[in-house]
This record gives sequence, structure tokens and C-alpha cells, in this order.
Amino acid sequence: MELSLAPMKKVGILGGGQLGRMLLQAAANYPVITHVMENDAHCPSAHLCHHFTKGNITDFDDVYQFGQGLNALTIEIENVNIEALEKLEADGVLIIPHTASLRIIKSKIAQKNFYKEHQIPSSEFVVTQSLQELQQHEYFLPAVHKLSSGGFDGRGVQIINTKEELSKCFDAPAVLEKKVAVHKEIAMMIAVSTTGETAIYPAVDMVFDPSLNLLSHQICPAELPQQVLWKAEAIALSVVKHLKSPGLFAVELFTDVSGNVWVNETAPRVHNSGHHTIEGNYSSQFDMLWRILLNYPLGNTSILLPSALINLLGEEGHHGEAAYEGLHEVLAMDNVFVHIYGKTITKPGRKMGHVTVISAEKQELLHKVNKIKHGLKVVSHS
Amino acid sequence: MELSLAPMKKVGILGGGQLGRMLLQAAANYPVITHVMENDAHCPSAHLCHHFTKGNITDFDDVYQFGQGLNALTIEIENVNIEALEKLEADGVLIIPHTASLRIIKSKIAQKNFYKEHQIPSSEFVVTQSLQELQQHEYFLPAVHKLSSGGFDGRGVQIINTKEELSKCFDAPAVLEKKVAVHKEIAMMIAVSTTGETAIYPAVDMVFDPSLNLLSHQICPAELPQQVLWKAEAIALSVVKHLKSPGLFAVELFTDVSGNVWVNETAPRVHNSGHHTIEGNYSSQFDMLWRILLNYPLGNTSILLPSALINLLGEEGHHGEAAYEGLHEVLAMDNVFVHIYGKTITKPGRKMGHVTVISAEKQELLHKVNKIKHGLKVVSHS
Repeated sequence: MELSLAPMKKVGILGGGQLGRMLLQAAANYPVITHVMENDAHCPSAHLCHHFTKGNITDFDDVYQFGQGLNALTIEIENVNIEALEKLEADGVLIIPHTASLRIIKSKIAQKNFYKEHQIPSSEFVVTQSLQELQQHEYFLPAVHKLSSGGFDGRGVQIINTKEELSKCFDAPAVLEKKVAVHKEIAMMIAVSTTGETAIYPAVDMVFDPSLNLLSHQICPAELPQQVLWKAEAIALSVVKHLKSPGLFAVELFTDVSGNVWVNETAPRVHNSGHHTIEGNYSSQFDMLWRILLNYPLGNTSILLPSALINLLGEEGHHGEAAYEGLHEVLAMDNVFVHIYGKTITKPGRKMGHVTVISAEKQELLHKVNKIKHGLKVVSHS
Repeated sequence: MELSLAPMKKVGILGGGQLGRMLLQAAANYPVITHVMENDAHCPSAHLCHHFTKGNITDFDDVYQFGQGLNALTIEIENVNIEALEKLEADGVLIIPHTASLRIIKSKIAQKNFYKEHQIPSSEFVVTQSLQELQQHEYFLPAVHKLSSGGFDGRGVQIINTKEELSKCFDAPAVLEKKVAVHKEIAMMIAVSTTGETAIYPAVDMVFDPSLNLLSHQICPAELPQQVLWKAEAIALSVVKHLKSPGLFAVELFTDVSGNVWVNETAPRVHNSGHHTIEGNYSSQFDMLWRILLNYPLGNTSILLPSALINLLGEEGHHGEAAYEGLHEVLAMDNVFVHIYGKTITKPGRKMGHVTVISAEKQELLHKVNKIKHGLKVVSHS
């Protein structure tokens, strides 16, 4: 019988957006003192932690100072000062994910080389350092040009079907990936404990809006032949195994009509594709990450009921103080869970919240997704 | 289509214990600015709200000042300064529950008179102002003596089987209630919206520890003949209807072997008997209270799965910084949800957390309840 003898553990989160917010909602179930660092004192997480530090998560001194004295530290976004995390890790702070795995994932170039090195199926690619270098790879089209660092939520990604579009690409280190004949995009969330145990969540179907290159909605569990799901699980587990780090990982994969599976990319943190687990699964991705950070056993990843998730994005043409049109109508629907992230200002395409629907009936999920997508809008005052 | 045009609403909570903590976890799903007042700046809610005010919730000036400028205000405990709430209500602040209903419930004497006035079945009683007056009611034994104000969690209640025990009773305004031949104690949670709609949660079986006069565990849904459940629902609805207030109400009832039902007492707030709704029901009692406070439609009270709940009380003989013995073992069990309230100091019998189990199998619930009751202990260091 283990006795938690130490005083409450101190755990920090770099970044104070909606992922931090939902992590902190889950943290209040456990004996833990929470610390958050973010540049904006009015960010979604600032009021939900024990100790908020205004600071720059990409600055060495800010991050190193923040992490000193913490038992564990995790991230909400990959774009953090990794050198400071490496020093903290050497000092004995538990960094989740381990910095070696973060180094691989943080750079799209390193990530693609990692897949290649470990024979993990992923689309063919070449590395390009500049626009000039890119011109030499016309033969690679149609392709997708991805900025090596700093891309996020569809930014830093350029689809190139013709050579005329090459000029829209990035004059900076990037990868040029061959376009894959995508049938479906799915996401697999995997938890890895500090003792090396793994738990895998049922796969999620990601349905994209082709014009915005942004998630339209997602459905869990994914509807795919069992053979394809097994292959996807095996590939996602292989990614995580080779990253050699505890943490919560979201592996995004493509499938084609022939049942081939490729890794698109991996995030070493709680992820949009796992938000449905709050209501749809026994242990949510946020609960799970606390179990990892606090050295508890992993939770149960099984679903309670199938779920659908809709991101709530700032409406086009609206920039200003956020208001929620149609919220009453959505809250009047049964088995619908609204998560508003508490951001004061809405901007076109900004992630302002999400809505989860749970039901044993797929038709009911899709019917409600459709109603919510058309009925709920984030607009600005006046 | 209603548009939330106003800036985010400001809502206050009087009291910063575990009920406030769980309310604040749920608040982060909605666009709301949260305010908490409590005398202890290290209370379980202090770090989870936008604005914490150190103040005395029984002090007129503290409460009145705290409430000014808020859109709505609710309570975590009945023992608050009601005169200040009345003035705030007159000023236009939405007080949930309305102060007229709080006046009735806050005093056990007024509460018993209220049941009598509205022909709501409740045990026979007499009012006693002093120990001296109590002596005149020997004929009433066996009975229960309940302090009119200030009782909480089993304090302020004295069971009297013989006249020798009369001396243990309260020399203050109290009610002396005839002992009822209790078969079961159940709780019914009811939500009432600001527009008068009601939603009733499935009944909960409260299983008491006879030595501590404290809840041992609870099971939802309660196992009772359908006729008895209907009667209990009708009685609980009648209580709420006559209180004429929006809010979240917990009505505790007794049943006997003949199927009679009596009201024991009512709480006009989120309540220990509803904690299982966080995981067991679609809309938790905490989610539901936010819907009421923010004028949203009521949520779905249906259960997802049957649940059991165990309170985690400070172990006898332990007083000091809290540690959790057996937490790992409990977290290794599937479908078990731990809620630690983050109180630094444990004391014998203090509510330090709770654990919810959900399962379609009653045997599994009871088996896990038993393991958790014997395996998880709140002790103090050294």
C-alpha cells in the first residue's frame, strides 16, 4: 500500500489556452498545486490555477525560472523554449513529454525523418530550406508544403496542385510532402505512463472542412474496417514506442480506399481530437494526463457512448467582444455538452469553444451536429 | 433566436468549500465571470474563481458589498447573512435560492412549520426554546432533537431514546421530532429554472453509518417499489413548488416498510447527495445550477449508468496535513472517479473528498464500494 507522504505535488503548464483550461478543470479532482505560465493575464486558464505567472513560454529565462521548484511540467503547445525544458529535465523536473521526444515533434523536418528512420508509414517528402530550393522539386507535385516550425491549426500549411502555386509557399525550412489520396483522416490518442504502460483510446473520425483546412466535426468511434483500425493502432503505438516518452499523444493518420494507413503528424499533448473524451469516455484525455503527471495508474479509455464533436470557431466578418448566438437553443437539446473557452475577443476562425454530443444512435449524433453547426455562432457585439 | 448581447455575467458564490469547487469546475464550460467569498484564502475554491474575496459570509457588510454589481448570487451553505441577501435581492441581484425560501429552510423550526402548513408529510414535532422547555415533552420520546440554526453534517442533531438523554440536548431554539420507523433514507434532487420549469433527478439511496450519523455510501437509482418512488417524487415536487423559488434543491426523505414517505429535510443548494451526477448523469447538479443562474434551459437529469458514491472522511485519530493512503490502488480500478477536495488539513470526520463508481451491474458497484471504503483512507503525516 503506497502512502502519498509528500506534500501536494506542484505541476506547471506552459500555455494558458483552452487545453490548459480543461486540464485545470480536471486537476481539481486530484491533490495537486497548479502553476500556469502565459503572456496574457486574461487567458482562459489564468483564473483556474493556484499560481499564474505572466511570462513568455518561448523565452529561456522565463521558462527556466517558472519550472524551478516544480515536480512536473507539461505543455499546451509545442512552441515553447525547449532548451529551458532540457535544463529543467537535467535538474530533475519531470517534463511530460520528455524533451527528446518534443525535439522530434517540434520540427516537422525532424518528425518526418523520425517516421522514415523507424519505418513508420508516412507520405514521401523532401526537405526544402527556401523558396528557391523548393523550385527544384516541381516533379513532386501535387504536394503539401509544411513549415518546419511554428505552424498551428492550419497555419503554416500550403497545398500545391500546380507549379504556379509554388510562389505561395514558405521561404523557410519546411517539408514538401507528396499528396496522399486521403479517404479518411483519423486520430488515435495514446497515453503512456511514467512506468511505460500504454492505453489507447478508440479512434476518431476527423471530418475536415475543405475550404478552411480546419476540422468540421469528429465522430468517435471511427467507422472503418476492423483491419484498418488494427493497422492504425499498431502504427500509432509504434510512433509512441519510438518516441520513448511518457505523456498523452495524439497521432493523426490518413487512410486510403485500399486500406493503407499513413501517419500525418503527432502531437505530444492533449489535443483537440480528444475533447470528446470528457463526456464520451470513462477517463478523459485531461484526467489521463494528470494520472501520468502524478504517477498514478492510467485510466480506462473505453467509451461510455459514441460521441460527436463540433469546434466553435469565430464567425467570418466578426472581430471584437464575443457573443454566442443560438446558445439557448443548443442547451435545450438533450445530451449536448457546451464548452465555451472564455476568450473575451472573437476573431474569424479562432477556436472559441466546442460542443460534444453523446448518443448510442449515429443518426442522432449527425442530426445534432448539423443543427449545432448551423445554429450556434460566435459573433461580436455591434 | 436569442443573442447573448451583454458582457459575460458575473456570478458569486457564498462559501468556498468543496461544493463551490465543483461548481467552479463546471462553470468553466460557460461564459461567466466567477466570484467567491470565504474567510479562508486557502479554501478549496479560492484558486478556481476569477475573483476571490476574503470575507465573512455571515456578516451583513461583507455579504452586501460582495454582492453589489453581481448579476446573480448563490450559496454553498445555508448559514449566510440573509438580511444582506434580502437587500441585494431588492436591489435586483438574482439570488438563488430566493431569500424567502432560504428563510424557511435556514431555520429548522420554520422548515417544519412550512411542511405542516402545506400538508407535506413530515414527522410529528414540537418546538422547544430551551432545555427546560424540552423536559416537558418526555411523552414525545423516542425522538430526535434538532437545533433550529447552525446544524451541519450531523452536528446539531441529538437522538433521544430515554429521558436520561434529554440532558445531552440543546439549550437553544430547536425542534423535537418523533422518531420515524425508517426503512430507507432517500434523496431527490430537483432543479427549478427561473422560468418555473422543473427537472427531477432519479432518487438516491442514502446508506448511513449508524455510529457516526453520517452517510456511508449512496446508490443511484434508489431501489424502491415504483409506487413509493412516485410518492416520494410527488412529495419532493410539492416541497419545491411551495418554496416558490428557482434553484437546485435536495429533498431528503424517509420511507418505512409500509411504503409511507416523509420529508426529513430540504437543502436549497447543490448537495452531497447529488455528487454522483457528475459522472452518472447527463447534466450534473453543478452544471444544472449554472444553467439556472445563467437563465439557460435545464439539462437532462437522466442517468448514463447506475452509480455509487463514497464520502472520503478524515480518519479517526488523524489531525494534520492530509495524505491519501490507498489512492493508487483505487485509481487502478476501472470506472472509479476520485474527487479530492484539496483541503490541506485533515480532521476526524472531515469531508476530504468523495469517490464515484459507475456500472450497469449493482454487484460491481457494491463490490467496489466495499473495496474503496476499506482501502482508501485520509491520514495525517507523521
